[in-house]
Amino acid sequence: MKNAQSFIGRMAVLALVTLGGTAAARGDEGMWLFNQPPKKILQEKYGFEPTGPWLTNLQRASVRFNSGGSGSFVSSDGLVMTNHHVGADALQKLSSHERDYIATGFHARTQAEEIKCVDLELNVLVGIEDVTARINAAVKPGASAAESQKARRAAMNNLEKESADKTGLRCDVVTLYRGGLYHLYSYKRYTDVRLVFAPEMAVAFFGGDPDNFEYPRYDLDICFFRIYENDRPLKVEHYLKWSAEGAADGELVFVSGHPGHTNRLDTVANLEFLRDRVYPYTLNLIRRREVLLSIYSERGLENARRAKEDLFAMQNARKARAGGLAGLQDPAVMGDKRKEEKKLRDAVQADPRLSKSAGDAWSQVGSAVKTWNDIFYRHQLLEAGHAFLCKKFEIARFLVRLAEESAKPNADRLREYRESNLQSVRLMLFSEAPIYDDLETVKLADALSMYMEIAGADNELVQKVLAGKSPRDRAAELIRGSRLADVAVRRQLADGGLKAIQSSDDPMIRLARLVDEPARRVRKSFEDKVEEPLRQAYAKIADARFALVGTDVYPDATFTLRLSFGEVKGYTDLGVQLPPWTTLGGAYRHAEEHGSRWPFALPQSWLDRKPRLNLDTPFNFVLTSDIIGGNSGSPVVNRRGELVGIIFDGNLESLVWDFVYTEQTGRAIAVHSSAIREALRKVYDDQKLADELGR
Amino acid sequence: MKNAQSFIGRMAVLALVTLGGTAAARGDEGMWLFNQPPKKILQEKYGFEPTGPWLTNLQRASVRFNSGGSGSFVSSDGLVMTNHHVGADALQKLSSHERDYIATGFHARTQAEEIKCVDLELNVLVGIEDVTARINAAVKPGASAAESQKARRAAMNNLEKESADKTGLRCDVVTLYRGGLYHLYSYKRYTDVRLVFAPEMAVAFFGGDPDNFEYPRYDLDICFFRIYENDRPLKVEHYLKWSAEGAADGELVFVSGHPGHTNRLDTVANLEFLRDRVYPYTLNLIRRREVLLSIYSERGLENARRAKEDLFAMQNARKARAGGLAGLQDPAVMGDKRKEEKKLRDAVQADPRLSKSAGDAWSQVGSAVKTWNDIFYRHQLLEAGHAFLCKKFEIARFLVRLAEESAKPNADRLREYRESNLQSVRLMLFSEAPIYDDLETVKLADALSMYMEIAGADNELVQKVLAGKSPRDRAAELIRGSRLADVAVRRQLADGGLKAIQSSDDPMIRLARLVDEPARRVRKSFEDKVEEPLRQAYAKIADARFALVGTDVYPDATFTLRLSFGEVKGYTDLGVQLPPWTTLGGAYRHAEEHGSRWPFALPQSWLDRKPRLNLDTPFNFVLTSDIIGGNSGSPVVNRRGELVGIIFDGNLESLVWDFVYTEQTGRAIAVHSSAIREALRKVYDDQKLADELGR
Repeated sequence: MKNAQSFIGRMAVLALVTLGGTAAARGDEGMWLFNQPPKKILQEKYGFEPTGPWLTNLQRASVRFNSGGSGSFVSSDGLVMTNHHVGADALQKLSSHERDYIATGFHARTQAEEIKCVDLELNVLVGIEDVTARINAAVKPGASAAESQKARRAAMNNLEKESADKTGLRCDVVTLYRGGLYHLYSYKRYTDVRLVFAPEMAVAFFGGDPDNFEYPRYDLDICFFRIYENDRPLKVEHYLKWSAEGAADGELVFVSGHPGHTNRLDTVANLEFLRDRVYPYTLNLIRRREVLLSIYSERGLENARRAKEDLFAMQNARKARAGGLAGLQDPAVMGDKRKEEKKLRDAVQADPRLSKSAGDAWSQVGSAVKTWNDIFYRHQLLEAGHAFLCKKFEIARFLVRLAEESAKPNADRLREYRESNLQSVRLMLFSEAPIYDDLETVKLADALSMYMEIAGADNELVQKVLAGKSPRDRAAELIRGSRLADVAVRRQLADGGLKAIQSSDDPMIRLARLVDEPARRVRKSFEDKVEEPLRQAYAKIADARFALVGTDVYPDATFTLRLSFGEVKGYTDLGVQLPPWTTLGGAYRHAEEHGSRWPFALPQSWLDRKPRLNLDTPFNFVLTSDIIGGNSGSPVVNRRGELVGIIFDGNLESLVWDFVYTEQTGRAIAVHSSAIREALRKVYDDQKLADELGR
Repeated sequence: MKNAQSFIGRMAVLALVTLGGTAAARGDEGMWLFNQPPKKILQEKYGFEPTGPWLTNLQRASVRFNSGGSGSFVSSDGLVMTNHHVGADALQKLSSHERDYIATGFHARTQAEEIKCVDLELNVLVGIEDVTARINAAVKPGASAAESQKARRAAMNNLEKESADKTGLRCDVVTLYRGGLYHLYSYKRYTDVRLVFAPEMAVAFFGGDPDNFEYPRYDLDICFFRIYENDRPLKVEHYLKWSAEGAADGELVFVSGHPGHTNRLDTVANLEFLRDRVYPYTLNLIRRREVLLSIYSERGLENARRAKEDLFAMQNARKARAGGLAGLQDPAVMGDKRKEEKKLRDAVQADPRLSKSAGDAWSQVGSAVKTWNDIFYRHQLLEAGHAFLCKKFEIARFLVRLAEESAKPNADRLREYRESNLQSVRLMLFSEAPIYDDLETVKLADALSMYMEIAGADNELVQKVLAGKSPRDRAAELIRGSRLADVAVRRQLADGGLKAIQSSDDPMIRLARLVDEPARRVRKSFEDKVEEPLRQAYAKIADARFALVGTDVYPDATFTLRLSFGEVKGYTDLGVQLPPWTTLGGAYRHAEEHGSRWPFALPQSWLDRKPRLNLDTPFNFVLTSDIIGGNSGSPVVNRRGELVGIIFDGNLESLVWDFVYTEQTGRAIAVHSSAIREALRKVYDDQKLADELGR
């Protein structure tokens, strides 16, 4: 449920990031923009109208985890709640052979004990501005796709810098409806983030991979951080009050979070490409890495600790993608998509104006996708870096490109090296997160082997990369020889600019330089021949849809703040009526039914404190609100804006939500607010933290 | 180390089975024919000459497990020793929710307690006859490849039937040197095989997947069966005496077993095809199934039990194939292959007679491999059945083809349905081995999904197979609807012949019928356009090699009995000198070093009895003898023909032996005979079984 983009690193989905679509909502469907909330639908279906202050408080209380998830302020003292599995990246980076915070959990009893995270960046959205006219004005009529791409990028890079310089905020131009609209999002950016509390993984991820994306569930998938400013807890005006009772059956609730990516309005040709190429490739890659990390992990406890977060990420992504592929391979889903597309195309055809503006959009998508298919593997291997997948290569590429891009005017830089994004790049680049050479070596050896398999052993670049050695030997040589684990070395290289990079004899820097030109070449092909044509075609479709369906539509997810709504509501699975929530007592029964063996073994703390707990306390609950990977950690609030739960997953039936929302059996899954307080008080003996919630 | 063919079911390697090659031996290299033992080399290097009786006793004491391994008679009362992981297939089929013999082991204290296996066939080789002239005579000069293929098959099918009718033995024509020679092997065939003893998997496979193919090792990878005839233990004249001391450092030893398949003399073009297509495809498939079975297993203890053998098979195959691919991707290995090939081709070119007979053989291999590449996926999906991989489909295919083939003259039948093989087919077909519908469904759903991915969603046959449903729904429908788990239903269908098959409404039979014609079509393409041209080309190369190198060469492995020799000998790994053997005491230390957690936890029996054991007893040892998957369970004997150990694995460095033997660090790994007796006596309190060994 975490944002799959971060989960599977730079996998295939990354290529999709800038695309987007529009949908006509049904039922409780929709990931709505905060500046275009679904007022009409809410009024009609639930008789509820969100007020300005209600929306503002929820928006400003929402927090984006740039590592790939969502969260919210739950006290005026900068306390942020998210999922354990969103915090896990930070926990992993703070852990060592001596202290495994993922396994044991972490508990600061005083603020002094809260420990600073290594490279965590949190963002709070403070402003949204429509800049569509300015971005579109930059593109001259009749310009080629390459010229359009370049002009649009320059406009975005410059606008962001201008705005950031003026406000001191993080400013991102967000492409909505795949080009239908451009909004400038301004964020407060926080990097002094400290770990407050995490439960043991055994209860945060109770049921493990078998129970992931399942319901009924029993997970305390929570984690607390605190934002500091000037070495003191951040004082916030906007945070969520804690509901006295928590979510109730049938209650109207809202989710405010950062859904990562959806493809709801892809054309059929585009979906077929996902089905036939992108998903199968991605799943093979995920399974390959899952097996690799499992093998590595089984060799010993320390290995298992080092690979834990990576392995979980692979398992989570594998299950999510497999569910997505199952949807794409389901003729019922595809049949509906075909019908919908035909209906829209017929309507466009029937309207002379629309027919002229958008009639050719579908065939444009089709031919862009065909080009995409032609360069797909090269793009994944070289530009997405799957051929060299390890942290040292990632750092080397960052260093090489930072030097190259910094030497250019801001307008001409690759998007991620635009002036306004450099702070975030540097945060990652100079992260003190540990790097394990043994793990790096097995990952790189496997990646190089895959590169040889796909690109071919006789490929000229493959031969240059391998330098006459086997993938294993070459990987060992590269990892052993590179000094990039040392942050001081990285800083020196970054400070030295192009000259330092060009004269570096670090073998990983040399590899990154070797593959940089071909990687840039395929990226340029992708941007000019795939991304831009798709953007133009989808913008036409979006405009046609606006004209036909009206404005009450929402854009596909873009890992930016969205508002969903829905009901707390059980469902029927294979004839069995599943309740709207589980209870703490159910967790103990679930463990017993599985022999209390990992991953169904509750931690000792929970076994010890069972007698104290109110076993009827609701634990996890299901709701119809529309979510997707990236929504992990999103607060669930009631009509009064009070926190009643925290999203941590969707059920198996919701995995098709990548492409289509269905509320018959698809559900989001959340931890109930009552369980959080009950556990903090009676399992973890933390009256103080429990009392701080919502205060 | 078990025969990879059986391990990975009908995977890519199956297509290779009938190919073979020749090699000029180096060092202790060679998997020698029992009727062409390497007398000269043994005499020169070790001053040893195997006598006729010595060879006969070893040959007749050797046992083939048709489920994919080797074994030997170790008492005059028909007691057969093999590996636990070879016996695991039988153990799994005898197990149920109530009794998990793989986990707990099995121990018959009396002969009355020995239990009959479900579908195990053991073979003992009693005769070898050269039938090359007769097989080759069947092929008319100037015949097309398709005609040659047909004529050769007819000759083989008929010869086998004729011989079987005459002798009452199982008779197989074995293609050696990929067509250079044809030998008729006659076997005694035993199917009343009873389980005598198996240790717990925790000690048989101590160290699990992490330690698989590793050394030092500490595995009691043994299992005892007893052959019965007329409900009484088989009395055998030829069995192995038990060595008093077991293997000693530097001692000359022999391995007699059934290596499954090697590609040592493939041309470079053929090896490149394995590297670029066969191995990557096979590894993706293995990883895919490994992940699938892991997920299924993690859902509960009973699931884990049901999938245990399958999952182990996948993990074993994955490690073996990955090692093979690493060899193929190693430019040093491929460089040597290129040099060798050039040397041979130059020598052929320099000899006018050879140049005429074999000069074009390499380009013939090249073009056959090209055709193979064109039909590779179709062949794997449809004929090897990867698109429908589950037991019920396997049974359905057997039934459909048995009916079709039985209606034809023996000469024209597909090889596996030749008259002389029908007993073995029926043994499998009517096996009472349990079939689990839930496991079948997840396997079939995944296979159908893969089929859709590779063949394409719009493929006409894909659409017919899926019948308008998603892979998951279709798999559920097929498995739920099929009654083929019931052996009586299978017998009825088999007895009913073609008519019963054609009128059956069992959905799996209907699926097998639907795909039969296209599957046969691609099989015929493979046989006529790939197999036969390769056979002819490789036969030419083999003849040229005989002419140039002489007759002291051995054929590639064919899962038939071979003799290897070598020394008990440690080696140096990354600068560390590894001893020729480990000890029982080492096992306890190894467990402790890994926190005694699975798979490094010794069973309770071993913990309890530690004080009684002589901890200095040698446990596992390494030897230079040439082995490959299928050799698992092979006896290791000394100059006197006494049993000193049992092969169960090779080290990582030996995985390249698929293509090239190297003895610098490559080693076979065996359980030491002394450890077996010590464990039987002191851990398992079985003085009787220990005393029976070698008696």
